[in-house]
Amino acid sequence: MLKSIKGIFTNKDIVSLSQFDQQSVMKLFKEVMKIKKTSPKKLFKNLQGKIATLVFFEPSTRTFSSHASAFKRLGGQTIDHQNPMTTSSAVKGESIEDMTHMLEQYSDIIVMRHPTKGTLEKVAEAATIPVINAGDGVGEHPTQALLDMYTIFEKFKRLKGLKGLMAGDMLNGRTVHSLIKGLSMFPGNTIYLLSPKELRLSREEYKEYSGRGIRLVEIFSTKDIPSDCHFWYWTRVQKERFKDQKVYEKLKLSFILTKKLISEKAAKKTIFMHPLPRVGEIEVSVDDDPRSLYLTTQPKNGMYVRMALFKLILKS
Amino acid sequence: MLKSIKGIFTNKDIVSLSQFDQQSVMKLFKEVMKIKKTSPKKLFKNLQGKIATLVFFEPSTRTFSSHASAFKRLGGQTIDHQNPMTTSSAVKGESIEDMTHMLEQYSDIIVMRHPTKGTLEKVAEAATIPVINAGDGVGEHPTQALLDMYTIFEKFKRLKGLKGLMAGDMLNGRTVHSLIKGLSMFPGNTIYLLSPKELRLSREEYKEYSGRGIRLVEIFSTKDIPSDCHFWYWTRVQKERFKDQKVYEKLKLSFILTKKLISEKAAKKTIFMHPLPRVGEIEVSVDDDPRSLYLTTQPKNGMYVRMALFKLILKS
Amino acid sequence: MLKSIKGIFTNKDIVSLSQFDQQSVMKLFKEVMKIKKTSPKKLFKNLQGKIATLVFFEPSTRTFSSHASAFKRLGGQTIDHQNPMTTSSAVKGESIEDMTHMLEQYSDIIVMRHPTKGTLEKVAEAATIPVINAGDGVGEHPTQALLDMYTIFEKFKRLKGLKGLMAGDMLNGRTVHSLIKGLSMFPGNTIYLLSPKELRLSREEYKEYSGRGIRLVEIFSTKDIPSDCHFWYWTRVQKERFKDQKVYEKLKLSFILTKKLISEKAAKKTIFMHPLPRVGEIEVSVDDDPRSLYLTTQPKNGMYVRMALFKLILKS
Repeated sequence: MLKSIKGIFTNKDIVSLSQFDQQSVMKLFKEVMKIKKTSPKKLFKNLQGKIATLVFFEPSTRTFSSHASAFKRLGGQTIDHQNPMTTSSAVKGESIEDMTHMLEQYSDIIVMRHPTKGTLEKVAEAATIPVINAGDGVGEHPTQALLDMYTIFEKFKRLKGLKGLMAGDMLNGRTVHSLIKGLSMFPGNTIYLLSPKELRLSREEYKEYSGRGIRLVEIFSTKDIPSDCHFWYWTRVQKERFKDQKVYEKLKLSFILTKKLISEKAAKKTIFMHPLPRVGEIEVSVDDDPRSLYLTTQPKNGMYVRMALFKLILKS
Repeated sequence: MLKSIKGIFTNKDIVSLSQFDQQSVMKLFKEVMKIKKTSPKKLFKNLQGKIATLVFFEPSTRTFSSHASAFKRLGGQTIDHQNPMTTSSAVKGESIEDMTHMLEQYSDIIVMRHPTKGTLEKVAEAATIPVINAGDGVGEHPTQALLDMYTIFEKFKRLKGLKGLMAGDMLNGRTVHSLIKGLSMFPGNTIYLLSPKELRLSREEYKEYSGRGIRLVEIFSTKDIPSDCHFWYWTRVQKERFKDQKVYEKLKLSFILTKKLISEKAAKKTIFMHPLPRVGEIEVSVDDDPRSLYLTTQPKNGMYVRMALFKLILKS
Repeated sequence: MLKSIKGIFTNKDIVSLSQFDQQSVMKLFKEVMKIKKTSPKKLFKNLQGKIATLVFFEPSTRTFSSHASAFKRLGGQTIDHQNPMTTSSAVKGESIEDMTHMLEQYSDIIVMRHPTKGTLEKVAEAATIPVINAGDGVGEHPTQALLDMYTIFEKFKRLKGLKGLMAGDMLNGRTVHSLIKGLSMFPGNTIYLLSPKELRLSREEYKEYSGRGIRLVEIFSTKDIPSDCHFWYWTRVQKERFKDQKVYEKLKLSFILTKKLISEKAAKKTIFMHPLPRVGEIEVSVDDDPRSLYLTTQPKNGMYVRMALFKLILKS
């Protein structure tokens, strides 16, 4: 069973966003703010002598780098397995539980990415040291949601009573689903979901999320974007989710974030976010807009959120 | 020529168990005990600024992690080459001697695993810095034998006058051969070797090992296991050693370590060991037995034995 | 636009040798000399808490290890991507500029090797943190030229008025071209270029380099090597540059550095260099000659030159 955080992070696993509540989110964000104000030299003293094992059964330069940097900036060291499917005992037929028992002998915390949903729960169950889920396929990627929430929080000083737009693939987008869940913990939020009809949220998920108290409004044209959003959260239509590549080609650039769209529909306060990588759905000319956070503040916050997690989990 | 240790580890290579004698084994184990009692913070001061190059021409998450963790816990850093066959000058046709000369410019010690027997001797011969053999094919893997011996020593406070059982593939099992050699250094030991007839020790090796003074008793049924063993050392039948996969399938699970077998044949004092990974030859239900050391104490000791080696070899 | 160094390295990119002039080369070499005299403990304090991202889109054990070791010996840590083509967002179609923006969030400096000429200029243009070119295909590899120049400088205390021999593939050899450019910054140098006719310098490059004031003399037989060279710089004929493997086989060992050739044509002062790896063009028996620097001093200087660059660029 996954333990709720309930404000106490020490030795906890971070596997699912469902372990969080308002209190634990706020405790985490307070720590992030503290870390952002601390000098590198002081930060470097936090985890000296500690070791994190990073096991990425699926490639991700971004998520790997962010966790590695976070741990190292706190003074710790990492043991890296960026492609363990080919370089490990996995090929010899070892179970994921036995592999977990091995890794925990050599480290203080495990960060794992795996293509199969539910794997991280198994790993956390088996492990006697804390485990962080860095994405398990169509399952969860809780620290991505937390960094997105922090980026919004940092700008507006709250996570309630917000109006947002999410665009792209609402059906398959893991980051979209997670951010909806995350914002559902706080009252009074409304999200506009912009996608082609083929990629709208599944009815089951629409019901489930709506039942959490968040207001979801599905739109299928940029004309229906309200002009007073706090944030726009754009996403990539992920090639790897489509069996029929023709369908992908047809849908991939249904909605593009352009300077023109911004001038028509964005507010002064609106921030522009994207989990990255992008493959054309945000025009490069938008990068220089001071409201664009996807290349700078947002990924940087990812590193800081992970630093805060590592510190809260491991600092005695 | 490989240098004997003779109690002095400074700047020595660790390539073969044959470099060791009782005195050097005991010096090493004394250092391991000392390290296990030292605080992480103190340990972290030992190798600050030192660099180990880890070159694994053959995949091994376990052995790689154990060495990496050992070196980092002592405050050192590593340069990692987990798949140099594809990412290195080896593809450009460079000799192993030239590669060694390259690596020694950039580090204080080399840890290498290689699929070909004898390679590590060549590397140690060429190198002007210490080299540790992390397994060279059907050749040697001396630190595995040392960690197995330490695990037995830690429990019984001696390495002589012991009775043990080894089960699995006696013909091809490198760890089995090494542990027999290691225990041969000490007087009065008896080992029961349990395997299917097809996988019994070769006659040459039977004679060679027996000539070292250790008593070897071959058995082919669990019925013949004596009930007063100090340790049971189970091993995997390694798929990769069989040309005919049908033979492998027939033999792979000839002998399984079960709760039932334990209740029939194990003593209170008997410890259960396995070099891992396992693929079915130990029932998962055995894991919780307090006498089972294969998932916890045994691999952890691997890290401590490697820490002790690094410290004795490099500490000035 | 690439910035000239002009003696000030702080936060500068190192992408091309053309950024250097006599003054900046000398400032760098002064720093190298200082570093070689400093104790490891003191060096280790320079970059504590700093992170370098090493991204090698093309394999190079040597260049990777040299940079990694340099950064770690100064107390920094690295985030390693040794094969990002397969383990990164590059496979998801991310642009090199976006990838750069990602990496700069997580590190203080980027070291990149890439198969395509000109990539590093793009990366440096996009990046807000310093970037070091560790080789971009047939483009540049400025730190290789600098370490070669330092090795000559260290021996002769000057970089002007020297006579050198370069042998091997003058047509495709990147290191040869770079070293010629490097030595062109200083007056009075003469280089003899020894190659088969098929691999002589292109007429365009011959003209370009000659125009810089260096004297280039093409020779096609060892008989024409002058007997008073300051250095011999041997190179590998690179298999990967040939479309027709028969031509490669015919030309690869046109000129071999042998003991016999040394006794006939080398002076007492002549030093023997090679960027490595070699595949037969230097006899192993030459290794023991005290004038042979290619296995020891030359690569070691590579590490020191990179330490000096990291220190000058990042030390505040």
